[in-house]
Amino acid sequence: MGLQIIRFKQDNEEKWGVIKGHNIIALPGTYSTLNQFLEEGVSEAHELLESGTEAHLSLDKVEILSPVTTPARIVCQGANYSSHREESGLEAQRPPFNMFFSKADSSLSGAYADIVRPSHVKLLDYEIELGLIIGKEISAASQITEENLHEYIAGLVLVNDVSARDVQLPEGQWLKGKSYRTFCPTGPFLYLLDQEEIAQIHDLELNLWVNDELRQSANTNQLLFKPTETLAELADIMDLSVGDLVITGTTGGVALNVPSEVINEILNPFVPGNKKMELLLDSQLKSDKYLSDGDVVRAEIKSSDGSISLGVQQNKIVPEKAAVAK
Amino acid sequence: MGLQIIRFKQDNEEKWGVIKGHNIIALPGTYSTLNQFLEEGVSEAHELLESGTEAHLSLDKVEILSPVTTPARIVCQGANYSSHREESGLEAQRPPFNMFFSKADSSLSGAYADIVRPSHVKLLDYEIELGLIIGKEISAASQITEENLHEYIAGLVLVNDVSARDVQLPEGQWLKGKSYRTFCPTGPFLYLLDQEEIAQIHDLELNLWVNDELRQSANTNQLLFKPTETLAELADIMDLSVGDLVITGTTGGVALNVPSEVINEILNPFVPGNKKMELLLDSQLKSDKYLSDGDVVRAEIKSSDGSISLGVQQNKIVPEKAAVAK
Repeated sequence: MGLQIIRFKQDNEEKWGVIKGHNIIALPGTYSTLNQFLEEGVSEAHELLESGTEAHLSLDKVEILSPVTTPARIVCQGANYSSHREESGLEAQRPPFNMFFSKADSSLSGAYADIVRPSHVKLLDYEIELGLIIGKEISAASQITEENLHEYIAGLVLVNDVSARDVQLPEGQWLKGKSYRTFCPTGPFLYLLDQEEIAQIHDLELNLWVNDELRQSANTNQLLFKPTETLAELADIMDLSVGDLVITGTTGGVALNVPSEVINEILNPFVPGNKKMELLLDSQLKSDKYLSDGDVVRAEIKSSDGSISLGVQQNKIVPEKAAVAK
Repeated sequence: MGLQIIRFKQDNEEKWGVIKGHNIIALPGTYSTLNQFLEEGVSEAHELLESGTEAHLSLDKVEILSPVTTPARIVCQGANYSSHREESGLEAQRPPFNMFFSKADSSLSGAYADIVRPSHVKLLDYEIELGLIIGKEISAASQITEENLHEYIAGLVLVNDVSARDVQLPEGQWLKGKSYRTFCPTGPFLYLLDQEEIAQIHDLELNLWVNDELRQSANTNQLLFKPTETLAELADIMDLSVGDLVITGTTGGVALNVPSEVINEILNPFVPGNKKMELLLDSQLKSDKYLSDGDVVRAEIKSSDGSISLGVQQNKIVPEKAAVAK
């Protein structure tokens, strides 16, 4: 069975722990990065759990941190479920390419941290995604197959790829609208996969609620580009390090729901920027699905048989504090 | 006067040096990252140069490495000169937003390294750009002004933002088409700015030649979004660390020259992916400006008065070696 790993803050110290039942066994070892934990701490976590050590530390007594530490590369797949392609104004079927973009690593935050809405953002959206933690250094084109995938994926995390649609879409390139600080709640658990569990990566259930209303519900068997071919293609292009994060795209049910005619206008280089913004806002502001201050987003990923759980995330939307004096 | 810093390999060791005349004074100190060099090595470089130490090591006796080391964040500005906007099928004037995207840091390579053309890439293009090296940790919205800009920019580098147009444009998000390994020749020099030189950042001449034919020629006074407002906006969004790289966009004269009608089709979500590729190739393959195997790209950035020089880059295009067995 795999391990549920947690990174947390207690008495102003950052620590790692392993989950037993509903409590934490804190690891004596200190690991300043996820990379260091994966290289040096995993055996300690296994030993503690297997030695029968009692877990006395309650999850609600600590501040849960993102298990992904900075600096980290965050590579994102775009439009990788048919249901999300349709609501985004795209053709539903698998496109001829696997679309990649990235998020700034400073967007990473804890599974219970507030999501800060920048004051200019009107179309704040959520995106539940399965995150893959790189387990083996990639520095050249590599033969990645279903058989050796477990070497390349150390574990899994639940990620909310929070998106400011009114920045992302009119500007065309997605880095900015998806990179604001707190726009990447990650965790609570890093689920370290056992080798025999790797096939279950294709049968994980994703569910996301806003104020207890179910908005997104899918299974990773619907992913258009699967983890194996995605990592193999990434290896052809770029280097990835142990502890880096690849997020696999979101499914239908986000707040964004743009007719193709509107998306076409927004992408048209002849349409001036302010007109694009007007079209987008006109089409979207009537929706009551976008996130407002005070809303609570809850998300969960687990295997259909319940044996794998990445935990539950819960994040409240809060307005940006007064900007620094300029 | 500022310093010209160089990172190089000699006898299989990676070293840092300072340029005196046309030679290198190697620093005794070892610095494994640009961050460490900027924090610990700059005073050593100043002292060696000012002590009158002789420079015996010839530039052509060493392998010149990128002064930007990995891991590093590479944030890129898109379409930031009017002349490049026009040839890309966009409106020439400054748009209502500063467009950001990113390149993988494994694309970084030395100023004389070969540029490897992936075998599937038919539209390989060049983009000379001024690169800003971050000199002060950014972890929150910050008051960045012309007056304190010298604290935030440690120095300048010459960058070629090599781009596979037939990946970048049909896929829509630019990360992949700009991230292949060797697609970011950087250097040769890291020019460490003196405080009084900071204003000259707005008056640097950029020139790029392919096989000795001048293709790009511009001055940084034409930048639509200037470094100060760019860094101030980035600070509002994301964290940057000492040694990270921000590249400021390219000017007119690249191989890409797409009529607006074609760009509009390529961005249209109703047009199927293979049709987009066909339209792009039809419009572009008749051009003889794209880079072919064996071509040599040379690039230079210096101040109009000649007092600041980031050095000259020269890179040959080579085909991808036989792919690894799969």
